[in-house]
Amino acid sequence: MGLVVQKYGGSSVADAEGIKRVAKRIVEAKKNGHQVVVVVSAMGDTTDELIDLAEQVSPMPAGREFDMLLTAGERISMALLAMAIKNLGHEAQSFTGSQAGVITDSVHNKARIIDVTPGRIRDSVDEGNIAIVAGFQGVSQDKKDITTLGRGGSDTTAVALAAALDAEVCEIYTDVDGVFTADPRVVKKARKIDWIAFEDMLELAASGSKVLLHRCVEYARRYNIPIHVRSSFSGLQGTWVSSEPIEQGDKKVEQAIISGVAHDTSEAKVTVVGVPDKPGEAATIFRAISDAEINIDMIVQNVSAASTGLTDISFTLPKTEGRKAIDALERAKTAIGFDSLRYDDQIGKISLVGAGMKTNPGVTASFFEALSDAGVNIELISTSEIRISVVTRADDVPDAVRAVHSAFGLDSDSDEAVVYGGTGR
Amino acid sequence: MGLVVQKYGGSSVADAEGIKRVAKRIVEAKKNGHQVVVVVSAMGDTTDELIDLAEQVSPMPAGREFDMLLTAGERISMALLAMAIKNLGHEAQSFTGSQAGVITDSVHNKARIIDVTPGRIRDSVDEGNIAIVAGFQGVSQDKKDITTLGRGGSDTTAVALAAALDAEVCEIYTDVDGVFTADPRVVKKARKIDWIAFEDMLELAASGSKVLLHRCVEYARRYNIPIHVRSSFSGLQGTWVSSEPIEQGDKKVEQAIISGVAHDTSEAKVTVVGVPDKPGEAATIFRAISDAEINIDMIVQNVSAASTGLTDISFTLPKTEGRKAIDALERAKTAIGFDSLRYDDQIGKISLVGAGMKTNPGVTASFFEALSDAGVNIELISTSEIRISVVTRADDVPDAVRAVHSAFGLDSDSDEAVVYGGTGR
Repeated sequence: MGLVVQKYGGSSVADAEGIKRVAKRIVEAKKNGHQVVVVVSAMGDTTDELIDLAEQVSPMPAGREFDMLLTAGERISMALLAMAIKNLGHEAQSFTGSQAGVITDSVHNKARIIDVTPGRIRDSVDEGNIAIVAGFQGVSQDKKDITTLGRGGSDTTAVALAAALDAEVCEIYTDVDGVFTADPRVVKKARKIDWIAFEDMLELAASGSKVLLHRCVEYARRYNIPIHVRSSFSGLQGTWVSSEPIEQGDKKVEQAIISGVAHDTSEAKVTVVGVPDKPGEAATIFRAISDAEINIDMIVQNVSAASTGLTDISFTLPKTEGRKAIDALERAKTAIGFDSLRYDDQIGKISLVGAGMKTNPGVTASFFEALSDAGVNIELISTSEIRISVVTRADDVPDAVRAVHSAFGLDSDSDEAVVYGGTGR
Repeated sequence: MGLVVQKYGGSSVADAEGIKRVAKRIVEAKKNGHQVVVVVSAMGDTTDELIDLAEQVSPMPAGREFDMLLTAGERISMALLAMAIKNLGHEAQSFTGSQAGVITDSVHNKARIIDVTPGRIRDSVDEGNIAIVAGFQGVSQDKKDITTLGRGGSDTTAVALAAALDAEVCEIYTDVDGVFTADPRVVKKARKIDWIAFEDMLELAASGSKVLLHRCVEYARRYNIPIHVRSSFSGLQGTWVSSEPIEQGDKKVEQAIISGVAHDTSEAKVTVVGVPDKPGEAATIFRAISDAEINIDMIVQNVSAASTGLTDISFTLPKTEGRKAIDALERAKTAIGFDSLRYDDQIGKISLVGAGMKTNPGVTASFFEALSDAGVNIELISTSEIRISVVTRADDVPDAVRAVHSAFGLDSDSDEAVVYGGTGR
């Protein structure tokens, strides 16, 4: 049997009991004959406590030092996890991101992995050890400074290591049973997905699903590393994310027409009102936004009113970037020549994702019908080949998600199935 | 002006307020025109908390992982300190022991510094930064594993860096005002020493004075780095430890005849009773002890009783090593051929240290007279060129220390001065 990479999040190793429980699970995999590399996050609230300390000494902690501080978190959890495994009679060694060869760029607090040179990890597992690697951290290629990958970066560490070590699978252990057809906190009848293709998972992640980060799935797709998202508490099979459907028993899980419904209430909408309808205006606006290093999501330009020659341009972006975007546009007001700005952070986005959309042209109509039947007003629309997203009032989101989930036959215990329904089981 | 190395202990950086206070002091040194390298320990109780966590997951934490765990402590304090300095408008960068080039052997939990290659620190200060270095830690030469130097190792880090960087002085900031003529908790009239020679400081450290570790002073003497021990709270001049007396105002501090009185109640006495008085017996005993990696302090062999041809051999050692020593001797009982073992942990050691002893033959007699006048019974005696030590009952130690301190005119506010008295002020 080959090598597996397992990743455990902060909630799985929140205290000494959690660490001992995780150690047992890791030893199981080793006993089953696998070489095991484990990526671990900081314990429970450690990161928040460190951030709190930083804020006590400085209102604006510097990136380099902030990363040095935060990486103490995984150092603690990984050393304790290695001790707990040794206490079960198995050999384990812990490694920092730098020791594990996780090379990043120099953008502190949200560095990107450039390369992974896992020579020490390979040697360690070849000597029979279980290797424990700090998630979320690396070392910058140029200055050899400690960097962090940003929140959720431990998943990316795990996938990147799995790729560099040519692992059979990257198991992401978390506190939920897998990826669901919708957020189970909103949709009680949401179903666990047995298998989902990389492409669908990418769209779900981009549309607000929190289980896996977009960057991590992207990495896994590029190197074709199967991800198995599962609970560190239950031991049940979770969700497989891969290029080809998995075998379950003697039948193959089939490609679902619709994978799931995602929602996101973390965005705001900016409308630039009264923009002259002439070439180059949109470019000026979005150059100002991108110069301020703001990522935007959807863009809609209204049809120009013939009488005035003016139009409105709306876009959505993370609420946390709202202030920065408004400031950037105000500074560029003369260059753009707009009348006014409107800012609205009471919006929500609902997205339907499924590879079957490509070959089932009725999906879009059914989606809008479901929203209409639920009395939900649509403000913006955006589509990709395998996704439709709409922006609505934030208050409408829960009802809208439930309506769409039900309309596409995704509800569990439901015998009804519309033409596009079912996950293929 | 040249480069100074400052070291701050855990009590000086116990919380955010402490870190901010220390940051101000560091910035003062920088403003005075120095290049500044700071060595910092873990915050207050961090190390104890980490040890507690380790004990929760494993009764016998492995050395390599234990070191990985503990080094998270300085990582936190050094990053916070760098942030606090930057918040005062000065540039600072923190470095782990490994990044700072602190190369050690592979003995986890009590590694020794083999070499210091401070290229990154030199570059950082040359660029105008204040460099903050994690104390207590390094990286092993052969395996590139993270190591710790053992408790108090941050002082050694500071002196070793000062030597490698050819610093003007190594300032050790602590929670006391300097080195005293005796422990001020025992002797209320103890005086702060303005200057003390390396040799005398080495003897004091070896005799139980806790302010500076023996290894740190040894390192400073070898590379001739002046140490200035002072309070991080008061800002007063503390104690200079160096090869040559310092200048104070327009007069030079003179060599004291007697530097101080140290005491130690952390040792126990083992007596091997009924040893055949023939060549090789002592060698067999102390080979058994040294094979068990136990460091011993004083050794005394009684005069053999002519009637039996048997003698007793006593030695002292740290109480923490007592169990191990007894076990080692029991195992070697046949080879040695002794009657029985006696173990006594109710002993104390009082030492008088002073370079003037060499040329003032009356010191020893005065020392014994002072003890006798105080009614203290002497059990063992050991001497070096500049030190006399006696073992007494532990209960007698406070009275004995006060009596000796007073007899040699070391008490502050005392106008009386015996012939050997005074610190030269």
